[in-house]
Amino acid sequence: MSHTASVVGGSGFTGGELLRLLAGHPEFEVVQATSRSKTRKTVGHVHPNLRDLDLRFSSPAELESVDVLFSAAPHGVAMGEIDRYREAADTVVDLSADFRLSTAAQYEAWYDGHSRPALLEEAVYALPELDREDLPGAELIAAGGCNATATILGLLPLFETDLLTGAERIVVDVKVGSSEGGAGGGDAGSHPERSGVVRPYAPAGHRHEAEIEEFLGIEVAFTAHAVDMTRGASATCHVFPDSPVSTSELWGAYRGSYAEEPFVEVVAGGGGVYRYPEPKTVAGTNRAEVGFELDPGSGRIVVFAAIDNMMKGSAGQAVHAANIALGIEETTGLGFGGLHPVGAP
Amino acid sequence: MSHTASVVGGSGFTGGELLRLLAGHPEFEVVQATSRSKTRKTVGHVHPNLRDLDLRFSSPAELESVDVLFSAAPHGVAMGEIDRYREAADTVVDLSADFRLSTAAQYEAWYDGHSRPALLEEAVYALPELDREDLPGAELIAAGGCNATATILGLLPLFETDLLTGAERIVVDVKVGSSEGGAGGGDAGSHPERSGVVRPYAPAGHRHEAEIEEFLGIEVAFTAHAVDMTRGASATCHVFPDSPVSTSELWGAYRGSYAEEPFVEVVAGGGGVYRYPEPKTVAGTNRAEVGFELDPGSGRIVVFAAIDNMMKGSAGQAVHAANIALGIEETTGLGFGGLHPVGAP
Amino acid sequence: MSHTASVVGGSGFTGGELLRLLAGHPEFEVVQATSRSKTRKTVGHVHPNLRDLDLRFSSPAELESVDVLFSAAPHGVAMGEIDRYREAADTVVDLSADFRLSTAAQYEAWYDGHSRPALLEEAVYALPELDREDLPGAELIAAGGCNATATILGLLPLFETDLLTGAERIVVDVKVGSSEGGAGGGDAGSHPERSGVVRPYAPAGHRHEAEIEEFLGIEVAFTAHAVDMTRGASATCHVFPDSPVSTSELWGAYRGSYAEEPFVEVVAGGGGVYRYPEPKTVAGTNRAEVGFELDPGSGRIVVFAAIDNMMKGSAGQAVHAANIALGIEETTGLGFGGLHPVGAP
Amino acid sequence: MSHTASVVGGSGFTGGELLRLLAGHPEFEVVQATSRSKTRKTVGHVHPNLRDLDLRFSSPAELESVDVLFSAAPHGVAMGEIDRYREAADTVVDLSADFRLSTAAQYEAWYDGHSRPALLEEAVYALPELDREDLPGAELIAAGGCNATATILGLLPLFETDLLTGAERIVVDVKVGSSEGGAGGGDAGSHPERSGVVRPYAPAGHRHEAEIEEFLGIEVAFTAHAVDMTRGASATCHVFPDSPVSTSELWGAYRGSYAEEPFVEVVAGGGGVYRYPEPKTVAGTNRAEVGFELDPGSGRIVVFAAIDNMMKGSAGQAVHAANIALGIEETTGLGFGGLHPVGAP
Repeated sequence: MSHTASVVGGSGFTGGELLRLLAGHPEFEVVQATSRSKTRKTVGHVHPNLRDLDLRFSSPAELESVDVLFSAAPHGVAMGEIDRYREAADTVVDLSADFRLSTAAQYEAWYDGHSRPALLEEAVYALPELDREDLPGAELIAAGGCNATATILGLLPLFETDLLTGAERIVVDVKVGSSEGGAGGGDAGSHPERSGVVRPYAPAGHRHEAEIEEFLGIEVAFTAHAVDMTRGASATCHVFPDSPVSTSELWGAYRGSYAEEPFVEVVAGGGGVYRYPEPKTVAGTNRAEVGFELDPGSGRIVVFAAIDNMMKGSAGQAVHAANIALGIEETTGLGFGGLHPVGAP
Repeated sequence: MSHTASVVGGSGFTGGELLRLLAGHPEFEVVQATSRSKTRKTVGHVHPNLRDLDLRFSSPAELESVDVLFSAAPHGVAMGEIDRYREAADTVVDLSADFRLSTAAQYEAWYDGHSRPALLEEAVYALPELDREDLPGAELIAAGGCNATATILGLLPLFETDLLTGAERIVVDVKVGSSEGGAGGGDAGSHPERSGVVRPYAPAGHRHEAEIEEFLGIEVAFTAHAVDMTRGASATCHVFPDSPVSTSELWGAYRGSYAEEPFVEVVAGGGGVYRYPEPKTVAGTNRAEVGFELDPGSGRIVVFAAIDNMMKGSAGQAVHAANIALGIEETTGLGFGGLHPVGAP
Repeated sequence: MSHTASVVGGSGFTGGELLRLLAGHPEFEVVQATSRSKTRKTVGHVHPNLRDLDLRFSSPAELESVDVLFSAAPHGVAMGEIDRYREAADTVVDLSADFRLSTAAQYEAWYDGHSRPALLEEAVYALPELDREDLPGAELIAAGGCNATATILGLLPLFETDLLTGAERIVVDVKVGSSEGGAGGGDAGSHPERSGVVRPYAPAGHRHEAEIEEFLGIEVAFTAHAVDMTRGASATCHVFPDSPVSTSELWGAYRGSYAEEPFVEVVAGGGGVYRYPEPKTVAGTNRAEVGFELDPGSGRIVVFAAIDNMMKGSAGQAVHAANIALGIEETTGLGFGGLHPVGAP
Repeated sequence: MSHTASVVGGSGFTGGELLRLLAGHPEFEVVQATSRSKTRKTVGHVHPNLRDLDLRFSSPAELESVDVLFSAAPHGVAMGEIDRYREAADTVVDLSADFRLSTAAQYEAWYDGHSRPALLEEAVYALPELDREDLPGAELIAAGGCNATATILGLLPLFETDLLTGAERIVVDVKVGSSEGGAGGGDAGSHPERSGVVRPYAPAGHRHEAEIEEFLGIEVAFTAHAVDMTRGASATCHVFPDSPVSTSELWGAYRGSYAEEPFVEVVAGGGGVYRYPEPKTVAGTNRAEVGFELDPGSGRIVVFAAIDNMMKGSAGQAVHAANIALGIEETTGLGFGGLHPVGAP
């Protein structure tokens, strides 16, 4: 194992996923997991899939020196702790929104004031399909938002190939699982209230719009719904191109962008039960499924993208980016390919 | 009980809902339920909630004479049997698509050739919120498609008040439950494959578009997803008005259209867990929840409408229309208001 | 409407069910609903199925004078407030455990010390199938525990007919929905942790054993599991009779006990999908399904009983008992018969 | 890769799991997957998690020569094809019931007549925790039934330590997911009918009793219920020892049996959300969770065992046994440890 690692905020859902991935990763050794609320409990006390891990949560007040520190603390924590993080580790990967956007103005427009704006420019967005070339050697990495990740992966080929100009009308209608709300969750997240829902929870103004607009350079009309699954984010993008686009152009674009990508699969039509991207197919994996269909009447392109919000949308993306940053073969530790059949993952 | 009634296709899901509603309706007496596959079985054998009903399925070959015949047979059956239906009953309510559209040309464009085109003009669409005045005395009534019903109810106030012209770009992203597939269902509808899904099943070209376009006089970009519930249809409509619309104008429009409607409730914001329409809240009821939110950045109107696909979207709508057609107080037999909490109904 | 009623603890799940039932009951008028946490909010703010109800929660500190007061407050509240309740109402129906057991010693063995032991003897258990004759005129009524109700209804015919002596070995294995935990619920009740479970939550020592043992006069080995539904309790009782029992004796026993009962249905074998009791079939209703199968090898009787824990197991049972206590036709207001199909209710 | 392998019946659920495991196994190379219904389709057409696998289903009529043939065909197929299987492969692992029992009489008592009774004695049951020493070099291996596996693993320590004599009364109450029904499934397995159930599907006489009785040498009173998950089997065993057993004796027994077992974890009490075995915690893994609680009143031992029915209960068990049979390190290819949180897997 060539690198030591720690996880700040290890008792949350994405913290648990980080621990799972790092514990099974041949190039990382987990030396610390912190938790404010579960200090001294075993990791397996909170994450029953990790009972074999011989590790107890320690206080975030005392950070051990490691090669890579992953922070899964809530929004706003990392920017306050960033000096301590960087003192403790050469490479910091933050899973919150704190360092995702490029400018303090943008951050303030969507979140609050930023206490360390100078670092925004330094931080590298953790989505290799978008900016793989920026990741090697990066010392501050910001994993993207799950809904933004799904949307960006769905739309990216249309812009990489200039099928779109960026001025088009694009509606993004997202369906997400309950793990997006994190552990805890309040009344709305309790099982009786949350199960079976198709619940509009962000009709407009969802913060992940900021990332989509920054990294694709476009504006989208974004709405998110909570649906009855625990893991998963599925983005349906309704795109109205100015000039007609053919199915073969679409295949060309998506194959062009993703044929060599290890974690993106194009699923568009064909027979059988699974003809388009579905979040349950990628549950537990770092894979994204991306697909499309052309509406023959209107010329609308309907783009689908499905990910596991905690994996490709968070912890998996973070490990993927860290692999690249550290020069590790990028798929290392991310090989789990998912199950079939699987219920509501 | 002033009216005798029969249900053709009573062993299917909507047939069962018709039987449930009619059996509990003080003005109807169910004298026959037919089923090709379950002839001579009790109704309760198929529908366990109706075990108290002392009725066995008979063959559709021998129709008893009744005041009202409800047909819940699959698409294409009613147009072939319509003469027998009308011979058996003064009033026929068909729940299939056979008589929903106005012209044979339209029907052929979305379905197949129509064998009885002359009847298309006579048939009245069963949505009272749209055409209540056409229903009294109607002898051939066509209950609408569930997804069309949700969409029409969601958008109707925008057109009744001229907030929209009909030329706007409108995206309709629908999420539906597994009962839409009917009893049976094949591999894709088996529990292991169907549970937990967010599955695009009609990216484009869904037949319910035809009804939306006919009754609202607009074109919509329509996509449907299967999600993990049994009952329910939720339509999210993304509308881009040419000129800005205010929230108070929206409230005016929706209150104007629905303040007096017994089965439509406007749910738009406010606090608590249930701030927008949700299908689980209306499960088992003939209610529609309709709501909206204004996207302050783009001026987009996001409209939500939630119904129980088998009730307001089918059997409940049919009974509601029959009530009006026969001069019965229109809410009779449709009083069940739903449960809280409820899981995935 | 002949009787005024109030609901203490109206913002909880069973409080909401009481309000739903009473609001639809022709003989009751709801004049007050109290809530400590939701004072001044509308009832519909918490219970979206009751938005039509023109009522706001008031503080439990000021009780209005009514004919019947239903208390859906947590265990321990009613015994402290009982004098205020009885001052406010001639008839008090308590849905907590406070007055279910007969003696203070029993209460202390299973709960804590009882502050008003003298009332334990006066209180009538609200299960009409067990003690209908004690209910007319009762002024203090205690609705039973949901798991106890399912178990008692399942086993009662075996004792009413002397097929069993009471000395037999009986294992009761119960599966319950998440509404049993009430609103709120903590980490274990959050959607991500609670969904999809088969979770042993009371391997031994469940408090409902006390009621089963008191009202059937037997000891049972009781274990409860949380499963993935919101409403419902399903009890499987494994009974080992000392001398062989035949299927026809079982049919005789169950028909004898329940043929005249309006809310109990015997479901035992036959064809089709629904051959034994299932909680989803009775969701939202006051019905119990009870059934059995004989294990030919061992002579074991396997008894199944399914109820909606919030209805027949709580609020429905309470209204049923109140109907009888007040001389109202006992099925009044409890007519909803359930849906088919229905998902995870 | 030291061994070639084929999977007969690869388009079914357990066939897909075999293919997933073998494709990720460093010591196996999958050279053939057969399917009667999906011949020439890609494996990924049926199993969307295996789209990367460059393999098409071939007809079972032409078996390639391999080192190990895994048969996931339905009961009754393998005994008819066994000569062809053994001609094609040195080692045959059958996942059906055909070779699980020891004698033709037993097989006939629970299934039908056996066409190759002589092989019953040769076949080795694939549960290493029970008979690891018989597996090295075995040429015909029979993977056990999922419900039997859960039950045997739960009870085994009580017999290995002589805490029980085998004459005790034991009730086994099992809850299983929908994948047990296999692909297809009919009306009862369709999503609308199957979701949300607690459905008694085998009140008595379940065939897996035969295995439990054979391998533990005891009789059990066995009942199975379908619950709302896709994967998973959870067995609750209610055991009434003749003489009192202490918690420390139970810990001694379970630790004694399982401390060295790589795939069995003892989970019994402690704090947190996950205090006893739960099937969702082991979904997708080859792990079994086993736990217990002592009922202080009655002395009853309540034993819980949870597995993934398709993994430890079928395909995982088969690969585990094959590893041992072939001298491969036994945990190879079975390292996936499960997810947290996870919904209804």
